Amino acid sequence: MAKVQRNTSDLLLRSGLDLMSQEGLSGVTLGRLAESVGISKSGVFAHFASKEQVQLALLEYSTRFGASIVLEPAMRAPAGLPRLRAAIEAWFGWAPRAGLPGGCPIAAAMFELDDVEGPVRAKVLELEAAWRATLSELVSEAQRSGELCADLDVAQLVWELCGIYLSHHVSARFVRDPSADRRASIAVEALIARAKAGAS
Amino acid sequence: MAKVQRNTSDLLLRSGLDLMSQEGLSGVTLGRLAESVGISKSGVFAHFASKEQVQLALLEYSTRFGASIVLEPAMRAPAGLPRLRAAIEAWFGWAPRAGLPGGCPIAAAMFELDDVEGPVRAKVLELEAAWRATLSELVSEAQRSGELCADLDVAQLVWELCGIYLSHHVSARFVRDPSADRRASIAVEALIARAKAGAS
Repeated sequence: MAKVQRNTSDLLLRSGLDLMSQEGLSGVTLGRLAESVGISKSGVFAHFASKEQVQLALLEYSTRFGASIVLEPAMRAPAGLPRLRAAIEAWFGWAPRAGLPGGCPIAAAMFELDDVEGPVRAKVLELEAAWRATLSELVSEAQRSGELCADLDVAQLVWELCGIYLSHHVSARFVRDPSADRRASIAVEALIARAKAGAS
Repeated sequence: MAKVQRNTSDLLLRSGLDLMSQEGLSGVTLGRLAESVGISKSGVFAHFASKEQVQLALLEYSTRFGASIVLEPAMRAPAGLPRLRAAIEAWFGWAPRAGLPGGCPIAAAMFELDDVEGPVRAKVLELEAAWRATLSELVSEAQRSGELCADLDVAQLVWELCGIYLSHHVSARFVRDPSADRRASIAVEALIARAKAGAS
């Protein structure tokens, strides 16, 4: 029984992640989730007490899921600039590469929830800050190895990197521009060149 | 009577734009719109045949509304780099400066509609392409005046500029980071410096 419960819970999360990736947080309702897994709405209630609980669980799950896609290949690259580059390469376009039918749920949530107060917004904020901290740590590693300038404004670099990520997301998924990857790569390399030169 | 109709239509658009800016396109329903203006749902039907018609009208209206905020000050600046800079300054954060209660409806729509086919997606795509064409024209003007490098990849510059805009949107509206304007300004100036040097 515990095993069945566990499997249904995993199934709900995996199916909910697909839904969230295509339709955003507001598209994830208990009814839609029940339908997608083929169980009753009360069956979903056995796992999650409310729509908000589902959304919070899915956000956690999506970052655990995403981190394995993005960070594992990065950790196999040598520390410093190669690891930073590997992380960026695995990060951009991670959602379709991970088999999600839609885009990055966190990117979409940052536009969906900018005016919505509450625990779901707070969770996205927390996950976004954690990801920026991870990127900052990778940049700092490349500084310590002497590959990037020591007096670099790390937060600025990460801020700009997030902009390139968002532009790539729009370009690849919304505009469906075949040059999205190439444009992102040019922008990232220019940013790294600036970070080597140490210009703020 | 024509005057009353006209005024109600204007009121519906203005009120709908506020709604769209806070809740995204999916938040704009005929019912919500009727409620926000204080008329009956059938009163809204007298102006728009469907939710889709409202969304299309609102998207058109938001860019006409936004263009007056962004382009009018830019056109008062001298042609070339000063005009490009004035347009960027007026563009970043235009929505709150225009008195909208939420963020840029087009930016949010590009994440909301990336997996939704149909005329609303096509309209956002058309408006986004038109805005990129306007930005490209401003960059080309600065090239012709000799302020930016002649062999610059204009589409790449505009692509990166859109990324800085999106990062600023997230930073100012979602993260509510007080340094959002400063970070955007550093990123824009670095992009312009690269465009002067002609590095791709």
